[in-house]
Amino acid sequence: MTATDIPSGRPAAVPTPAAGDPRLARLSLNQATAKRWSVAEAVDGCAAAGLHSIGLWREPVAEHGLEATASLVADRGLRVSSLCRGGFLTDPDGMAAALEDNRRAIEEAATLRAECLVMVVGGLPAGSRDLAGARRRVVEALETLAPYAGERGVRIALEALHPMYCADRAVLSTLGQALDMAEAFPVSQVGVVVDTYHVWWDPDVWRQIARAGDRIASFQVCDWITPLPADTLLARGMMGDGHIDFPPFLAAVDAAGYTGDIEVEIFNADIWAADPRQVLDTMLRRYVRCVLA
Amino acid sequence: MTATDIPSGRPAAVPTPAAGDPRLARLSLNQATAKRWSVAEAVDGCAAAGLHSIGLWREPVAEHGLEATASLVADRGLRVSSLCRGGFLTDPDGMAAALEDNRRAIEEAATLRAECLVMVVGGLPAGSRDLAGARRRVVEALETLAPYAGERGVRIALEALHPMYCADRAVLSTLGQALDMAEAFPVSQVGVVVDTYHVWWDPDVWRQIARAGDRIASFQVCDWITPLPADTLLARGMMGDGHIDFPPFLAAVDAAGYTGDIEVEIFNADIWAADPRQVLDTMLRRYVRCVLA
Repeated sequence: MTATDIPSGRPAAVPTPAAGDPRLARLSLNQATAKRWSVAEAVDGCAAAGLHSIGLWREPVAEHGLEATASLVADRGLRVSSLCRGGFLTDPDGMAAALEDNRRAIEEAATLRAECLVMVVGGLPAGSRDLAGARRRVVEALETLAPYAGERGVRIALEALHPMYCADRAVLSTLGQALDMAEAFPVSQVGVVVDTYHVWWDPDVWRQIARAGDRIASFQVCDWITPLPADTLLARGMMGDGHIDFPPFLAAVDAAGYTGDIEVEIFNADIWAADPRQVLDTMLRRYVRCVLA
Repeated sequence: MTATDIPSGRPAAVPTPAAGDPRLARLSLNQATAKRWSVAEAVDGCAAAGLHSIGLWREPVAEHGLEATASLVADRGLRVSSLCRGGFLTDPDGMAAALEDNRRAIEEAATLRAECLVMVVGGLPAGSRDLAGARRRVVEALETLAPYAGERGVRIALEALHPMYCADRAVLSTLGQALDMAEAFPVSQVGVVVDTYHVWWDPDVWRQIARAGDRIASFQVCDWITPLPADTLLARGMMGDGHIDFPPFLAAVDAAGYTGDIEVEIFNADIWAADPRQVLDTMLRRYVRCVLA
């Protein structure tokens, strides 16, 4: 029986790559893609599929226990490609609490030996229209957090989010802007995320990826689908279901010198409703077909 | 009785500026904001409110009659701040038809003596992931259309749309990219639109507005509201209902040398459902309070 792709329901166009397939060497599952899985299930799922790394989220990690998660991941021979997430550094009233929470996130990333701590910087504070001020506060917060991360061997990865999220999620809107912020700090302390979903539209993206060079701390792939779902936070698609041409992005980060994990992070109600094992299998197929192709 | 703002339902914070109020000198109503009005009703509404210009759309103009609309607008002492719209130049299979339609649009803009013909360039062709190719075709089409417009005294205004619309509406995503395209042509033939809704998030927007200078063919204002409505084409808000700080944008286009109309174009189901006269009155109040403030 031919496997079925999730969530399109279309028959699989290629066989599911088996564990040990060298094409999977860089692929990582961000656990948010298999939201129904616990940390233990996601780690087991990745190990069984032959992946070498997994992207984790702080809340499920806390549920499983931080030290227990670190041990489990190591026991299964996996690495943590990223920890999600720190950030939310734009509200002056909540700044002390945000800094404290980000220090904890850094400590968790250190314990997990995560390749990076992803930062979603936050939107405009409630009632504020001061976009420049919000952006300035992110830089000010990084001045505190970057050395704190550096001392613990943790690398912050600034994630530019699609401009659609500028008001309510992240005032960091382009890769170029993320690099402008990152360059005030040592490469080992602050890098950037290149996420196809967020940057694919940017006419300047090729120049910025080349500029990023060893600032690239994480490369994430998922697709841009239309029409956008009513909840735009869940608008990400499985690779191949949307409009993004992935191979040029992989070629560009490779040319910039990035040799790290390629993480698949998809927030999508239909994917979340499906069997995570089938989601993972679809991800393997679509990765070799649409990203490596 | 205090007037009520549309669509917020909040009491008006300032009196409605009366016809003849010098603060209204540059304000224009794009007729799409008062969608229920016919061309005749919209022209009468603008004239009664003391506006000096109106933005028109091709379909309602055709319904009223092109020559009749030109006469009506002139009779009421109005100018046409913009004609919407040409464009949709990205599909190779439809290119001949698109060019022909754009030539007609240029002729209509000439007849209406419109300040500019707004161009929404189109998204990715169905099934295509070739974003660079789609963008290239826009430039190729402009090589045909720009001189055609120039010969008729019409100025094309390239509109960068929010990156949220890149796949399905306009592969032209930033003001900088619009200027890169426009600069291949004479200033009199190809300018750009600065629309706060589309560009407010852009960290590079101030530099690009300054760069634009006399390429600015149209300045449009409306707000970015959250959460985004399910239909993101109808996500525009009345000024003051969202997250955009307008006065810096007006100051920037003024500093760039723009002295033209300030047009309000809002696609919003709640605004469309309301009495257009109340929409227009709200627009007058919000303009003096949120844009000129």
